[in-house]
Amino acid sequence: MVATPKIRTQVGIIGAGPAGLFLSELLHRHGIASVILESRTREEIEGTIRAGVLENWTVDLMNQLGVGERMMREGHFHTGITLRFKGQSHHLDMVELTGGKKVTVYPQHEVIKDLVAHRLAQGAEIHFGVRDVALHDIISDRPFITYAQADGTPAVLTCDFIAGCDGFHGPSRQAIPAAARKEFQKIYPYGWLGILTEAPPSHHELIYARHDRGFALLSMRSPEIQRLYVQCDPKDDIALWPDARIWSELHQRLETVDGWTLTEGPIIQKGIIAMRSFVCETMRHGRLFLAGDAAHIVPPTGAKGLNLAVADVLVLSRALEKFYAQGDSAGLDAYAATCLARIWKGERFSWYMTTMLHTDEAASPFEHRIREADLDYVVSSRAAATALAENYVGLPI
Amino acid sequence: MVATPKIRTQVGIIGAGPAGLFLSELLHRHGIASVILESRTREEIEGTIRAGVLENWTVDLMNQLGVGERMMREGHFHTGITLRFKGQSHHLDMVELTGGKKVTVYPQHEVIKDLVAHRLAQGAEIHFGVRDVALHDIISDRPFITYAQADGTPAVLTCDFIAGCDGFHGPSRQAIPAAARKEFQKIYPYGWLGILTEAPPSHHELIYARHDRGFALLSMRSPEIQRLYVQCDPKDDIALWPDARIWSELHQRLETVDGWTLTEGPIIQKGIIAMRSFVCETMRHGRLFLAGDAAHIVPPTGAKGLNLAVADVLVLSRALEKFYAQGDSAGLDAYAATCLARIWKGERFSWYMTTMLHTDEAASPFEHRIREADLDYVVSSRAAATALAENYVGLPI
Repeated sequence: MVATPKIRTQVGIIGAGPAGLFLSELLHRHGIASVILESRTREEIEGTIRAGVLENWTVDLMNQLGVGERMMREGHFHTGITLRFKGQSHHLDMVELTGGKKVTVYPQHEVIKDLVAHRLAQGAEIHFGVRDVALHDIISDRPFITYAQADGTPAVLTCDFIAGCDGFHGPSRQAIPAAARKEFQKIYPYGWLGILTEAPPSHHELIYARHDRGFALLSMRSPEIQRLYVQCDPKDDIALWPDARIWSELHQRLETVDGWTLTEGPIIQKGIIAMRSFVCETMRHGRLFLAGDAAHIVPPTGAKGLNLAVADVLVLSRALEKFYAQGDSAGLDAYAATCLARIWKGERFSWYMTTMLHTDEAASPFEHRIREADLDYVVSSRAAATALAENYVGLPI
Repeated sequence: MVATPKIRTQVGIIGAGPAGLFLSELLHRHGIASVILESRTREEIEGTIRAGVLENWTVDLMNQLGVGERMMREGHFHTGITLRFKGQSHHLDMVELTGGKKVTVYPQHEVIKDLVAHRLAQGAEIHFGVRDVALHDIISDRPFITYAQADGTPAVLTCDFIAGCDGFHGPSRQAIPAAARKEFQKIYPYGWLGILTEAPPSHHELIYARHDRGFALLSMRSPEIQRLYVQCDPKDDIALWPDARIWSELHQRLETVDGWTLTEGPIIQKGIIAMRSFVCETMRHGRLFLAGDAAHIVPPTGAKGLNLAVADVLVLSRALEKFYAQGDSAGLDAYAATCLARIWKGERFSWYMTTMLHTDEAASPFEHRIREADLDYVVSSRAAATALAENYVGLPI
């Protein structure tokens, strides 16, 4: 009979997504030990292709942590975006509007690869492929996590604190009693059909288009691969979207400006995602702290998801550093309130961008005009354009 | 038998509200003759107490037209507003945010008195108390208006153009065939219970409050009289609102800041108004031009109604001047599009302020938080505060 392996660390992190990996890295720099438990394999988390737009400060943080080298080499630095509606194209110069800030298009799975490699090189413990993760005694000073290792062996991780970085469907949020949390949610009546296509980007920056046929977005993954999206019914069957239909919709929605054309190429991936806004108040229960998608979801318009997750763990790492270095738990006590104040602004911005850019068949003609007026106003007012830009590059943290 | 009086003028104006009176004044300065037909008596239009917040350029226009003397003496010049929510008070300094612009609290009926006196002193024809106004041949070059004079005698006003300044319920908009216009509307699920109370203003500027019990607004009519509003059910019976209940709600919703108290006084007027957003596209049909409430309604939050009406007739007067002086009808042809571009921004702002500041029982908890986040964002971002301020003092015309 083999004894159940028992590990002891200071912070047990559930989830090796951006929140968990950044947290582990940040804690390491403060001399705080952590262990990460991840239900997927390393190949899975590194191979799941995800979009990524990094806010100005997120890029700075990557560089400060010494994990930004490849991002600086391979990322696309965008100084603006284009808004298209009512047949017109309008450029917002983010750098000029925000006094020098920009965003960086660098996919989330590339961020993950960089962080995983860096943490493992430092000797970090990341347990991939674990199952049956369960949280225990989270309101005590000695919480612990039980799980099955990749080979099936049961194991226990004992720690001072648990960081629930396990996404929307993970067990961490559910470990907080329902009476101790309040959940806020909006399900949008539209989804995104996203494709990857082997063609050089048709434009050097992102184009967000509102069209009577629905939203469309032009983005890029690399100098050879475009990422394109069209608004669709979230319950649509992908089989109803043969390539010709996708291209037809993309051309109609994006090509509103004389002369500019969308470059086609072979479609190498396609899929439909639903869109949801979600916030869990509180983000802390006893010794459990939620971060990232475990606590909040935004629709992809505006690209805030990864950045909100990193902001959470930056706040959490500072609070834990203060606790371990000075025995001061004020930061931990303030964690949820500190994070939620900024998260709700990110939720607001994501809701605003989503609502403004999508068409909703259930919306009244009046609401339709209000959305167009939102866009008209943004491109006619420096103050309104600056408000959009400062959210896009990242509000102060 | 008395012959039907027949009058001939260049511009027949239906309605002696702000739109009609400003138009008549503006045309007079361009040497263009007009006659105003008004269904109410002079006493009625001057005695119907209405709130009024004049945008920066509206005040300038009053002064340019030589009708601003009393406004400059008796109006209240406000350099900012206060937003109250979540128990906190936040001041927005409009003058500082907009580079020197402010608003002026000067009631609409006082504007009307000044304009009527000025026009009559210039010998203008304003026919009060007319009935049965009907528009004819509006797609011809010789439209005419039939009506009954105050004494019941039928009369005819023949003109080159008709300006429909007769409000939401007037006959002008209805004279445009339904197929030639498209109407956009939103009815809000809340109303305002407004009171006038004999007490000096409790604060020197307007206070807009969002409270879990509903919206409240502190305003003032004179150094002796406050105007106060509380959000209520638009179908409420005023009998359900005895004075004690009104004061109780006002104290709870407005007194969120330590130390400050609301001054009570005898309530000398009270009433409930419903709230609506409405836009008619087009604003022109043949020789008929709609202006003001005949074409668009905003809810009172943000105080845009009078200013949007004056903006319409400023555009119309310039177009008519160009027509008569140069035979150029380009301005008339562009009238609806020129006005609607700015009107929809005014509709957007009024909708935004209304939605942000009122509580809606039918709204989800998520939407409730988004409204609070809207407010949190406005008071934390200079760009967002500037966007609110530039709308409040008046967008460029």
